[in-house]
Amino acid sequence: MMQLQVLLVAGTHGNEINGIWLFDEWNKSSLLINTHGIKTFKVIGNPEAKKAGKRYIHNDLNRSFQKELFLSINSSNFERSRASELVNLYGEKGENPCQIALDFHTTTASMGSCLVVYGRREADLALASLIQNQLGLPIYLHEADQKQTGFLVESWPCGLVVEIGPVGQGLLNSRIISQTKLILEALMEQIHQVKNLNLFFPDKLIIHRHIKSIDFPRDKEGNIDGYVHSLRQSKDWQKLNKKDELFCKLNGEIIRFEEDESYIPVFINEAAYVEKNIAMSFTKRELWNLKKEWKQSLIELVHQK
Amino acid sequence: MMQLQVLLVAGTHGNEINGIWLFDEWNKSSLLINTHGIKTFKVIGNPEAKKAGKRYIHNDLNRSFQKELFLSINSSNFERSRASELVNLYGEKGENPCQIALDFHTTTASMGSCLVVYGRREADLALASLIQNQLGLPIYLHEADQKQTGFLVESWPCGLVVEIGPVGQGLLNSRIISQTKLILEALMEQIHQVKNLNLFFPDKLIIHRHIKSIDFPRDKEGNIDGYVHSLRQSKDWQKLNKKDELFCKLNGEIIRFEEDESYIPVFINEAAYVEKNIAMSFTKRELWNLKKEWKQSLIELVHQK
Repeated sequence: MMQLQVLLVAGTHGNEINGIWLFDEWNKSSLLINTHGIKTFKVIGNPEAKKAGKRYIHNDLNRSFQKELFLSINSSNFERSRASELVNLYGEKGENPCQIALDFHTTTASMGSCLVVYGRREADLALASLIQNQLGLPIYLHEADQKQTGFLVESWPCGLVVEIGPVGQGLLNSRIISQTKLILEALMEQIHQVKNLNLFFPDKLIIHRHIKSIDFPRDKEGNIDGYVHSLRQSKDWQKLNKKDELFCKLNGEIIRFEEDESYIPVFINEAAYVEKNIAMSFTKRELWNLKKEWKQSLIELVHQK
Repeated sequence: MMQLQVLLVAGTHGNEINGIWLFDEWNKSSLLINTHGIKTFKVIGNPEAKKAGKRYIHNDLNRSFQKELFLSINSSNFERSRASELVNLYGEKGENPCQIALDFHTTTASMGSCLVVYGRREADLALASLIQNQLGLPIYLHEADQKQTGFLVESWPCGLVVEIGPVGQGLLNSRIISQTKLILEALMEQIHQVKNLNLFFPDKLIIHRHIKSIDFPRDKEGNIDGYVHSLRQSKDWQKLNKKDELFCKLNGEIIRFEEDESYIPVFINEAAYVEKNIAMSFTKRELWNLKKEWKQSLIELVHQK
C-alpha cells in the first residue's frame, strides 16, 4: 500500500503572498506546523508570477488545469506549462503521487476564512464537512459555471481551496497569516484522524451553492461606470433582498437588486475578478445531509484502497 | 498676466485606480466636479503601468522627478521619459504651464485621508493649512529622507499629494472614490478662494513631521521573517510608546519598540513600500504657527505676480 501524501500549494496566484510566507517560515523551522507524520509537499504554485508581483504571467494558473491543455506541456504559455508540470510532479500518477491537494488563497473581498469546493466530489465534501464541524467555516460550492473551469484542485482525487480575506494583493497581514496557519493545521489534523479512522462527521453541513455571477454596470463603450455600493461593500455572506443597494454611480444613481429571489453574495469586489467581469457572485444557503458514501470515499482515498 | 492653471494627476502609480476612475467619470460628465472656472488638466500619471496593472514599469514614477534625470528624455526607462514628458507638457515652463500640481494616491495602510507635503515650501504649507482648516485632514511633512527623492509635485511651484486608504492595489472602493472627490472639490474651492482673496487661514496647523522609516525584521539571508503585529496593524496616526508591540514572528516572538522617544507611525504595512525596506514611518506631531510669508507666497503664485 502506498503512503498517503498531501500536496500543499500557496501562491497559485503570485500576488497572494501570505501562504507563501507561511511556507517559507515553515521551511526554516520544520516544527512550525504539525503534519501528524503525514508526508506533505509544499510548493509555490506560480513562482514566476510571484517574482513579478502579479496574479499570473499569461493566464490565470487556477483556470489552466484543463485536461485538453496538458498536451501542450512545452507551451510558451507559462501557466499551461506549469499546470502540466505540477500534475506530472505531484498528480495521482506523478513522480510524487499526492491524493489530496490543498490550495491556499487570499481575496480582497471580506470573506473571512472559507473553503471552496468545485463540483460535488464526495471526498471533497466529506473533508470540508470535517473542517466546518471543527472551525465553523462556510463552504462555497462552485459549480455550473461554464465560464470558469480548470481549477487546480480538480486535477487531484480530493482537493479544497482555502480562501481568506480581506487582504490587499501583495500585502502581508498578521491576521491572514494566523488564519492560514490555523486552517492548515486543522486540515492536517482532520486528515490524520481519517487515517486513524478516528473521525466525527457531522450529520449535516451548510453549503453556499453558486448560482451565478454578476458584472459591474457598464456604459455604452463597455467601460465600468459604477462601483459596489457602500452598503454592499464588505457584506459577503449577508443576505441580499429585492430592492437592496448593489452599485452606485458618481451622479448619485443607485442600482438596486431587482429579482424576487434572495441570494447570499460572495466575493464582493474581489480585485482579481474585475477582468473576469465579476462584481460579485450569488449563492443559495442550503442545509445538506451528510451522505454515508462521502465518508466512505474519503476514507478509501486516505487508506489507498 | 497669465491665467492660473492646475495640474491634476491620478494613477502616478498604475495600480492606484480610484482617482483614475474618478477622472474618467468626470470626463464623461463635465459638471461632476466644480472647478470654479479654474482651468485644470487631468492626466493619468503612468498610463503604461495602469495598463499593466502595476505600480510602475521600470522605476517608481513618483521617485523619478529628479532634475539630473530630465536630460535623458529619450531614456529607455519608461518612468524617466514620462517624468520629463509631464514636465515639458505641464511644468511651469511647459506647453500648458501649471502653477499647482495635485497628485492623488491611495495606500494599503489605514491612513484615512491625508495630505503629504515634501519639504517646507511656503505655498505648499499654506494650501495644506487651508484644507486642514476645512476638512481636518492630517498633514504628513516628508523631509530629510535622502533615500526617497524625486517626487512629482516637487517639479511644480506648488504641489500636494493626497493619500487615501486603506484600499488594496487595483481595487475600486466606494469610500475611497467619495473621499477622493471630496478632497479634490475642497482643493479647487480653496484655490478659488485664494484667487478671489477671500480666504480664512487658520492661525496654527498640525504637522506630522517625518523622522525616519523602519524596516521589517529580517533573517541572516536578509529575508523578511516577521510581520506587523496585529496590535500595530491599521493603527496609523496612533502614538507608539516604548515597549509597544511592533512586529511578530511565527514562533511567537514579539519585537517591541525599544526607544525612549515616542512617535506617531504612518504608512504602516503599505504594500508598495516592502521593496523599499519600509515597514512603517515614524513622525512627530507638532503644532506650528502659520507664517505670514506662506500666505503671501501662495497668493502671489495664484495671482502670478
